[in-house]
Amino acid sequence: MALRLYHFPLSPFGRKLRLAFFEKELLAEIIPAAPWEMDADLTAMNPAGTLPVLQIDDKTAIAPSSAICEYLEEQSQGMKLWPTDQFARAEARRLVAWFDEKFHREVTELILYEKIYKRLKRSGHPDTARMRAGLHNIRIHLDYVSYLADRRRWLAGEELSYADFAAAAHLSCIDYCGDVPWNAFPAAKDWYMRLKSRPAFRPLLEDRVGGMAPTGHYAELDF
Amino acid sequence: MALRLYHFPLSPFGRKLRLAFFEKELLAEIIPAAPWEMDADLTAMNPAGTLPVLQIDDKTAIAPSSAICEYLEEQSQGMKLWPTDQFARAEARRLVAWFDEKFHREVTELILYEKIYKRLKRSGHPDTARMRAGLHNIRIHLDYVSYLADRRRWLAGEELSYADFAAAAHLSCIDYCGDVPWNAFPAAKDWYMRLKSRPAFRPLLEDRVGGMAPTGHYAELDF
Repeated sequence: MALRLYHFPLSPFGRKLRLAFFEKELLAEIIPAAPWEMDADLTAMNPAGTLPVLQIDDKTAIAPSSAICEYLEEQSQGMKLWPTDQFARAEARRLVAWFDEKFHREVTELILYEKIYKRLKRSGHPDTARMRAGLHNIRIHLDYVSYLADRRRWLAGEELSYADFAAAAHLSCIDYCGDVPWNAFPAAKDWYMRLKSRPAFRPLLEDRVGGMAPTGHYAELDF
Repeated sequence: MALRLYHFPLSPFGRKLRLAFFEKELLAEIIPAAPWEMDADLTAMNPAGTLPVLQIDDKTAIAPSSAICEYLEEQSQGMKLWPTDQFARAEARRLVAWFDEKFHREVTELILYEKIYKRLKRSGHPDTARMRAGLHNIRIHLDYVSYLADRRRWLAGEELSYADFAAAAHLSCIDYCGDVPWNAFPAAKDWYMRLKSRPAFRPLLEDRVGGMAPTGHYAELDF
């Protein structure tokens, strides 16, 4: 089975999947693309016009990332990323939605989209009021991550899951902008360091987008 | 196992689940609530502060609706609402995300939230520019529903699925406002009539919210 994952390198949704592909040891072509430059082939694969898209054997395509996660989990033989227990699994799904919907709306769109996406798309200047709101909101979310990390081995419980990857995917994109106040949230920082030092994280730390270098500690394991 | 579903009657996410509970013949207490009046117990069940929330045996709670759908599908014995084939299942999940994310952002938030939620929450007057955008966008989505309904028995393929319930849940809320131009989209209308005449739909047609009656044909099977 030939797998091709089309992704935008600074997309949290693509990053969540790249982490999953690596941990599951799935062989796949990982192909960078930009959501605002999708050609007709990519749009046919996902009429919603978003990335990531997973293409299978040149004929079937799966999107969005939530459907790809479920597909990988149902089909692949590698590491399981939904917990075994039914309620732990529901908790992991709740947290994936927390980051992919709530954190995305309250932080990612306000910081990453304003600072980087707008520049890459040449669609105007960053809105500083929105960025300020994002910088305010991220502290509330880091407080919640700390709360969870203080009480559990991984965010959803005892097992590493998509919840950790969704959270780390969003935070790593904001970290690329230099806007995660890690030192004020030591438990969140400790959890992130454990993820960041996994080999699966390396490709993310090597991403460079549109000639913009990430901030100082972005790729450092000791930050 | 005692199930309690807390839902807001005019929420598409609650409606998707109420349809599923009925079709699966699950015994559950269906309890109306409002997301802007959640008490401490409900907020503890879902820290994101959204409805619906499913409470199980007075102790465990599951949210949001996407996690509840997966839980119901894994645990319950009734009618299956994800298709059997893996790619049909991925297609159904793509369409659920289409309606719960894209349609929600491009139509539901612009019409239902402006017209009804704002009034119930006493949070200002409807923004007419947003409503106009929603009325424009819904035609593009109805065109897509017609395209699918012309080619398939149900939206995701041969089997009735969560994709139909997600789509019908959003459209039924907009229909409560009288803003679905059904007659311009006969294939979409035919698909919706088939759903609307199922017994599972009846409780939705009886919803009345905040003293606002729905528009004329809302509860009629021949509209």
